[in-house]
Amino acid sequence: MKRVVVVGAGFGGLDAARHLASRADDAELEVVLVDKHNYHTFMPLLYQVATAMQNVESIAFPVRALFHGKRNIRFLLAEVQGVDAANKKLETSVGPVEYDYLVLAGGSVTNFFGMDSVAKVAFELKDLNDATRLRNQILESFENASRCEDPEEQKALMTFVVVGGGPTGVEFSGALSELIQHVLSKDFPQLPVQDSRIILVEASPTLLAPFPAPLQKYALERLQQMGVDVRLGNAVKEATSTKVLLKDGTEINAHTLFWAAGVKAADIGETLGVELQRGGRVPVTSDLSMQAYPEVFVVGDMMYLEQDGKPLPMVAPVAMQSGEYVAAAIARRENGEPAKPFRYKDKGSMAVVGRNAAVAFTKGIKMKGFLAWIAWLGLHLYYLVGFRNRAITLVNWAFDYIFFSRQVRLINKAPKEDEGIDV
Amino acid sequence: MKRVVVVGAGFGGLDAARHLASRADDAELEVVLVDKHNYHTFMPLLYQVATAMQNVESIAFPVRALFHGKRNIRFLLAEVQGVDAANKKLETSVGPVEYDYLVLAGGSVTNFFGMDSVAKVAFELKDLNDATRLRNQILESFENASRCEDPEEQKALMTFVVVGGGPTGVEFSGALSELIQHVLSKDFPQLPVQDSRIILVEASPTLLAPFPAPLQKYALERLQQMGVDVRLGNAVKEATSTKVLLKDGTEINAHTLFWAAGVKAADIGETLGVELQRGGRVPVTSDLSMQAYPEVFVVGDMMYLEQDGKPLPMVAPVAMQSGEYVAAAIARRENGEPAKPFRYKDKGSMAVVGRNAAVAFTKGIKMKGFLAWIAWLGLHLYYLVGFRNRAITLVNWAFDYIFFSRQVRLINKAPKEDEGIDV
Repeated sequence: MKRVVVVGAGFGGLDAARHLASRADDAELEVVLVDKHNYHTFMPLLYQVATAMQNVESIAFPVRALFHGKRNIRFLLAEVQGVDAANKKLETSVGPVEYDYLVLAGGSVTNFFGMDSVAKVAFELKDLNDATRLRNQILESFENASRCEDPEEQKALMTFVVVGGGPTGVEFSGALSELIQHVLSKDFPQLPVQDSRIILVEASPTLLAPFPAPLQKYALERLQQMGVDVRLGNAVKEATSTKVLLKDGTEINAHTLFWAAGVKAADIGETLGVELQRGGRVPVTSDLSMQAYPEVFVVGDMMYLEQDGKPLPMVAPVAMQSGEYVAAAIARRENGEPAKPFRYKDKGSMAVVGRNAAVAFTKGIKMKGFLAWIAWLGLHLYYLVGFRNRAITLVNWAFDYIFFSRQVRLINKAPKEDEGIDV
Repeated sequence: MKRVVVVGAGFGGLDAARHLASRADDAELEVVLVDKHNYHTFMPLLYQVATAMQNVESIAFPVRALFHGKRNIRFLLAEVQGVDAANKKLETSVGPVEYDYLVLAGGSVTNFFGMDSVAKVAFELKDLNDATRLRNQILESFENASRCEDPEEQKALMTFVVVGGGPTGVEFSGALSELIQHVLSKDFPQLPVQDSRIILVEASPTLLAPFPAPLQKYALERLQQMGVDVRLGNAVKEATSTKVLLKDGTEINAHTLFWAAGVKAADIGETLGVELQRGGRVPVTSDLSMQAYPEVFVVGDMMYLEQDGKPLPMVAPVAMQSGEYVAAAIARRENGEPAKPFRYKDKGSMAVVGRNAAVAFTKGIKMKGFLAWIAWLGLHLYYLVGFRNRAITLVNWAFDYIFFSRQVRLINKAPKEDEGIDV
């Protein structure tokens, strides 16, 4: 029986594995799904965990539960170290795994573009622990501010610099503003919470680059109404744990810098021995396999493919569609059928700015405000894997909406662990 | 204005603080509540977090949210280092805090009774991080077992030794058995999960020592039906990370040892300069204040007081009643009224063994089985602080009950943190 090894339980890898999994006893392929976590993370809601709006566990789902009753799939909890493509072997923290087909769906990591001072102090938001760390930082900053007697330092503790005006930066800024205005202001009655500042820095002249101009304008105005200080056409140059220096020379006293200004492909690609594209992405042919190794497929953020003269974006819908496509492509190869080229169908984009306020566009339709917010809510609930998570997420949202409350604002530092799979 | 400093946001400290907190602008006392966490932990359900039945955050509640609108109370996030009773000063990680009245409600820590080899490898269950660590251990043991080719080691990975036949040991053993039988057996179809063992070791001749004999018998039989191997009149002598040695000479190959066999008072008591009682508890007079320092009150697990010739037990109801009592006692002192002696009202005990199976007794009434389980559920929901937590807990329980599922089984290792308040 031929073995397909899928690396990564994100949107791409999970969709590939799901479409390869089978209840039949006589499945023709054996599937091994490898990830360093035993759960899938619903990444679009990480910003809600970071702003104490969702439980950490509400946006994660145990991978093994997704494959109950499927006969041909195994999950392997391991860290992937590299690919020995010549010998069709995956190197992992628990030993090598041989494959006939390999699906690389390792996703992406934060890209600091070589800015070491920023990388050292900035918070990022690529997994649950990042979200917990950022939540701890926000809440601890307010706790520290409440004990601080120097007004300048107190203000710096309550100043948050967000870098990157894409959906993550916009959504986080809006949610943080609501957390501070509606919740922390009540938690810290003795603190001059009105001195708190959120500064959103974006290098390009607009927020939400791929959105239509009227929606960009709506998001900008809405954030400004919520008190977010948006600095377009500017960028971060350097940072320390208490100071952020912008390109235009502005110095901001801030203890929290959140970096949402770029990602690059996971570094497994570097072990393939081929020339990578911008952002460390692996070039693939039209059926998403590598030219040099046709049995190796690459999906999602790790893959580099141009469509209509432009590289496909590193976003969840591309990952899902390419994951599903690869499952079918492998089946076609096995059946000796000719390959059909992959084609990404852009169904639009959406981003939520705050309470009742989102922007969305699809096939020429533009929505903003309450309607877009409802659409965003429905779509995200629909995609949240698993009934239980949906129920809890709904309870959280309903409660939040009615009471402006965030129940989850716990500073929950990690048990110290120094062995095994890290997180 | 006189200042009351309350140490600890557990049941005792929280109830003291709540009854001292006031909405009035002209409150006569200022209250400072100090804890190293910014949340209260509902400890009776820690075992459910450890067995992947509850979200970590479902059983915790942000302390500051409990005091919205109260004018005379402040929360201080700090680690308490000791008491300078002569100078009425509390020493903390963020500097000294002066007091007129001090309420010590620091609770208890695990007592390994000097058994160093056990202390080194055993898991405990005193806070959220303990619960997360234990959950990680259980789930990782199954992940490791699924990759293990040596049948003996595989069995050892799936063997869990629980020490202590009190409510925690009984409830944990039952919940772990259900997790393994109903959930992990489906998660790991290739694993011989029937070889998994739970061994519950108790030094005395019965489980649930303070319960009536018929209920002890019911709990024992029920656990045995669930496959738990109960060893009464035995004890753990030594342990390594892969082996547990019992007093009777039995050697058990097990990678997980959970210690629920004893607690001792938090060590702040040692800085008071008085002779402590058994388990490091602080002796108090009948109004729960110290003989040497009448302005220092001690409540809950930290206090030592005999009633009807026996020391009061270290349990949640004693903590709650003593916390509430001290708030009133301080008010009486301020008003020049005479002290009334504290008297603990034992309202009974309950413990849950498994699905539809609990034991409970109160004022001569004994209950077991489904009815006791419903009573247990109702009481715990009632006591779970905060509406939101109640809603989510209910969803979790309902889902579990209907689908035998545990959604929360994530191995979520901690972000590494080496500064600040530890957890």
